[in-house]
Amino acid sequence: VNFASDNTSVAAPAILEAVIAANAAGPAMPYGNDDWTKRVVGQLRDLFECDLTAFPVATGTAANALALSVLMPPYGALFCHEVAHIQVDECGAPEFYTGGAKLVTLPGDDAKIDAATLDERLRNGWIGNVHNPQPKAVSITQITETGGLYSAGEIAAIADVAHRQHLKVHMDGARFANALAASNAAPADITWRAGVDVLSFGATKNGALAAEAVVFFDPKLAQDFAFRRKRGGHLFSKMRFVSAQLEAYLANDLWLANARHANAMLQRLKQGLASLPGVTVHGAAPANLMYVTLSNPMVDGLERAGFKFYREGGEGMIRLVAAFNTDPKHVDLFLETARRLSR
Amino acid sequence: VNFASDNTSVAAPAILEAVIAANAAGPAMPYGNDDWTKRVVGQLRDLFECDLTAFPVATGTAANALALSVLMPPYGALFCHEVAHIQVDECGAPEFYTGGAKLVTLPGDDAKIDAATLDERLRNGWIGNVHNPQPKAVSITQITETGGLYSAGEIAAIADVAHRQHLKVHMDGARFANALAASNAAPADITWRAGVDVLSFGATKNGALAAEAVVFFDPKLAQDFAFRRKRGGHLFSKMRFVSAQLEAYLANDLWLANARHANAMLQRLKQGLASLPGVTVHGAAPANLMYVTLSNPMVDGLERAGFKFYREGGEGMIRLVAAFNTDPKHVDLFLETARRLSR
Amino acid sequence: VNFASDNTSVAAPAILEAVIAANAAGPAMPYGNDDWTKRVVGQLRDLFECDLTAFPVATGTAANALALSVLMPPYGALFCHEVAHIQVDECGAPEFYTGGAKLVTLPGDDAKIDAATLDERLRNGWIGNVHNPQPKAVSITQITETGGLYSAGEIAAIADVAHRQHLKVHMDGARFANALAASNAAPADITWRAGVDVLSFGATKNGALAAEAVVFFDPKLAQDFAFRRKRGGHLFSKMRFVSAQLEAYLANDLWLANARHANAMLQRLKQGLASLPGVTVHGAAPANLMYVTLSNPMVDGLERAGFKFYREGGEGMIRLVAAFNTDPKHVDLFLETARRLSR
Amino acid sequence: VNFASDNTSVAAPAILEAVIAANAAGPAMPYGNDDWTKRVVGQLRDLFECDLTAFPVATGTAANALALSVLMPPYGALFCHEVAHIQVDECGAPEFYTGGAKLVTLPGDDAKIDAATLDERLRNGWIGNVHNPQPKAVSITQITETGGLYSAGEIAAIADVAHRQHLKVHMDGARFANALAASNAAPADITWRAGVDVLSFGATKNGALAAEAVVFFDPKLAQDFAFRRKRGGHLFSKMRFVSAQLEAYLANDLWLANARHANAMLQRLKQGLASLPGVTVHGAAPANLMYVTLSNPMVDGLERAGFKFYREGGEGMIRLVAAFNTDPKHVDLFLETARRLSR
Repeated sequence: VNFASDNTSVAAPAILEAVIAANAAGPAMPYGNDDWTKRVVGQLRDLFECDLTAFPVATGTAANALALSVLMPPYGALFCHEVAHIQVDECGAPEFYTGGAKLVTLPGDDAKIDAATLDERLRNGWIGNVHNPQPKAVSITQITETGGLYSAGEIAAIADVAHRQHLKVHMDGARFANALAASNAAPADITWRAGVDVLSFGATKNGALAAEAVVFFDPKLAQDFAFRRKRGGHLFSKMRFVSAQLEAYLANDLWLANARHANAMLQRLKQGLASLPGVTVHGAAPANLMYVTLSNPMVDGLERAGFKFYREGGEGMIRLVAAFNTDPKHVDLFLETARRLSR
Repeated sequence: VNFASDNTSVAAPAILEAVIAANAAGPAMPYGNDDWTKRVVGQLRDLFECDLTAFPVATGTAANALALSVLMPPYGALFCHEVAHIQVDECGAPEFYTGGAKLVTLPGDDAKIDAATLDERLRNGWIGNVHNPQPKAVSITQITETGGLYSAGEIAAIADVAHRQHLKVHMDGARFANALAASNAAPADITWRAGVDVLSFGATKNGALAAEAVVFFDPKLAQDFAFRRKRGGHLFSKMRFVSAQLEAYLANDLWLANARHANAMLQRLKQGLASLPGVTVHGAAPANLMYVTLSNPMVDGLERAGFKFYREGGEGMIRLVAAFNTDPKHVDLFLETARRLSR
Repeated sequence: VNFASDNTSVAAPAILEAVIAANAAGPAMPYGNDDWTKRVVGQLRDLFECDLTAFPVATGTAANALALSVLMPPYGALFCHEVAHIQVDECGAPEFYTGGAKLVTLPGDDAKIDAATLDERLRNGWIGNVHNPQPKAVSITQITETGGLYSAGEIAAIADVAHRQHLKVHMDGARFANALAASNAAPADITWRAGVDVLSFGATKNGALAAEAVVFFDPKLAQDFAFRRKRGGHLFSKMRFVSAQLEAYLANDLWLANARHANAMLQRLKQGLASLPGVTVHGAAPANLMYVTLSNPMVDGLERAGFKFYREGGEGMIRLVAAFNTDPKHVDLFLETARRLSR
Repeated sequence: VNFASDNTSVAAPAILEAVIAANAAGPAMPYGNDDWTKRVVGQLRDLFECDLTAFPVATGTAANALALSVLMPPYGALFCHEVAHIQVDECGAPEFYTGGAKLVTLPGDDAKIDAATLDERLRNGWIGNVHNPQPKAVSITQITETGGLYSAGEIAAIADVAHRQHLKVHMDGARFANALAASNAAPADITWRAGVDVLSFGATKNGALAAEAVVFFDPKLAQDFAFRRKRGGHLFSKMRFVSAQLEAYLANDLWLANARHANAMLQRLKQGLASLPGVTVHGAAPANLMYVTLSNPMVDGLERAGFKFYREGGEGMIRLVAAFNTDPKHVDLFLETARRLSR
């Protein structure tokens, strides 16, 4: 039973069926000049209620790095949280795709940065000073790497600070659906209406095989994206097989249903664990991912019982993630085991 | 009816079924730590009869650029044909992934370079001269961009020249299966036994959805490949869906059957066209791709009749490509139409 | 006696004196915020009769690579002659500074490209096609690497073709002074009036210790140049010592006097050699550099006699370069020796 | 009167004379194949008592970035202090020259990192994990950006931790002479004997016009340095003018005399200020640079009196730097003024 990550899971049935159907449709124009891709852009426009431009890619790292590549000159400085995926877990992809921009990290609870810290950091004299990397963008993760959630107001405050100094705002939305499900916000409210310029819109972790979209709320920013995607090796000849996944993901609110289920499973896990002695849940963890500290015997015992998760962040701390297809029985089994071990 | 490219086609049934089966198998370790990926490496070892290392990726450009990134220092010079895909059709991906290496182009019939030309080019004093980009690798395409085929002897001659000067040899095998089918050579004979160090082993054009493998015949060369793949955004979390395609592609010689069919269809097209007045077939074109020059009325008429192909290379010249699933009836229809137009 | 290159020579007395004077002036603002640098920009505005922006750097490779870095996106294609210094002799600096742009080479006599060849090359379908590197600039060398001279009309024709397709025009003017001296053109006539957007204005080869200027005729192009120069390690803290060289170089037409002398010495050499049997002068060679083919005994004999030059370009071919301080007696000695050897 | 930086000063007379003499010597082989460059390497070998390899360059940023470029793969992580010059003041040059390596910052008093912090940081699981940038080097500044001094023991402890994990050790020695003068250590003791692999050996701030050397204590590390220097535009054609500065700098212990004077002047300033009410000296500041906090009226008054320095690091904090030619009368004048303002 796996609570290690939402990327170990299978694909959602409707998404796999969409791939099969895309194949049954016979030959199609290559390189994104197909109907599936066109339809996905239309779906995203409807979802976000604006005239956006979007590009399918197949990995989250590609989505993030390519998104940043159009925001950052090579001499730029990008601000992000010190545990941001782009800083820690992409083996330097943002530096690679931006031609060497510098990631400057900010502290903050729950892996969230805040407007005041960013503001103070931007007042340090770098802007316009030829010796310093030039602040050009800020990136936030929604939900964050530790399961935190930015409110629309928090995002707007960060974006205000950023835009005042001509920085662009990127959102790493690898688990964007889970954020939406947890916040009940409209997609537009926690993105472009709050000042987000570019979104990495994830689907892989929430039921796709391999599909993400880079969403530009200001199409002008996307002017050379297509060349950068090709040059990164991320333009698929049979693109329809990526786009078909996104189409099915967006159709009938599958993305939302999947995210709601994953969130519900993690909340069940959270409430169950919180009631046990010696358990600390870190942060609010309102979506499908949390960090908890258990006693060492509990951690060891759960592993022995066959549960999979990452030990991370220090003594007794583990990360738990629920997926779109997490079985409630597995949650209950985990809780029972934990309860037994806590005695 | 489409003779424009082998990348407009669907996936082969067995490959799609393998993806479906990989999904039905339940959760799997992410990022290539799955059983499918392990098995694919084993299959490639059997196929090439050696102790190679291999990495699945999802596009041909990624395969080429990542392969070159481990062969080239940023101040290096890479030799390739002037119409090589890496030079013309990857929007600068090789320069991107190598950190700015220079591609130096060589002429040659049928998009083939030859050992003598390379040898002469390497005698120009660049090696060791601090002012010049440093020759570090040569890349050949098999089959070539115009449908040509390198013999084992031709490859060995190029590799000899290259290795004598400490250059590595890369083969872009986007249509490697078609080369094998056309040459009846053993895979090892036209790769490592002839001196190829790294192969981009293509599957997408020959029946996969999106799957290629970078094959290192000298595993030492691959030491940091995994980091470079991740940093390029080409490490898939649900890697099994890429590897499963390759597994099915390699199983039961599907790759060979597909390539043989594609080649047979193109040969039928070639023979039919060659018998018509005013038609010139360029090069030997022994596999599944050829350039032919027709009269303008023929080209126009074929297009009006609904046939798709690229006009390329000059007045009346078109490129024709057959795929693993090209229907012989479509070939015959094309030939009939051409015959009628030639009168 | 050295005819190998103009970069083996000493500095012109007035330039060295300017460095000494800059030192005697006491402390100065660092990083180019000094008076010398301001004055040099003013001198260049006067010389070129326009409101340009200029930046001192210390090497020709830095000037070229930095100039190109603001013209080229990393996915761009830059057109230049196949023997251009930027292609052959800068160890990949243009690729480095542009983040991996592709240099596409064009043929042409006397190391000159021509408008028609460029025009034809730009009609090959790359522009706007996502698979191809995107044409963004053309670079010409004045005088060329083989001693050729572009006329104002030839430059304008190239720039017309380039600008029509939104390409920028760079001129590598490592020996720009020699071009001016040879052509009697006004500086503006063979630069911005003919369509040149950015000029690498050389001084090192013509009497400086180490000083060049990157001249932007359209100051808007220079918006982020300062950051790129700093990031390349080319912003000198004690910049005045570079700028003082340029100031002296530009003052009292020293640049022109130096170039005229160098050209005169080479012309004397050329006329003397041309009158000998078995000697072929290649190209018009109107400035201070030429390629000539001599008989092997002549080449060997001249070397034995202690003359220094590069053997380059094939059997019996050598490159001869005159400098601002070439002694006419040395020219005559060379000619006498050659004459004796030709008998 | 300038205490803002040691890079606003003139060149030391002996160094300027060396440049004049190098010019008087007539033509010389270009690109570092001259006698001055050879002699400098010999001097450095004597100074450091080992068989090192060294390369002159003209700026500190070039020295640092080029040194790091041979230590770091593009997917590497480099550890340095959070206020390191390479992190803050080189506009991203290290990222540029390494092809996008990530700089990971560590805290520490007096701008010094310590072995324990580095050790803990290296135990976080990044090494060998494909998702994380790979730790490959650590860089320390001697003296630090705030005037701190590493002891031989502190350096050895850091290098031990680094080498145990196969990281290389770089030292930014922009003010290395001042460190030596302050520590009375042998050059070898605080470099290679303590585990430093590569040193940026500064001269510009201590009396040169523009001259630094990149010193490789393990010549094997330098194998491709020459190509990287050329490609960065840092190979000077008339290299002797850079090397002549270094030769004079190293001759007769000029470097040491200059550094001792600068240190003495700063110490005099420090002792004078420390005795005043309301003055806080930050850190030990044993060399030629310190940060002090004064009252606002003192800072304002000193500026009004014409003294130049940087306000930096917060309310009332200023940076003071003494140079090789700082006049003791100016120090005393500064102290008198401060004393008067403190009443």
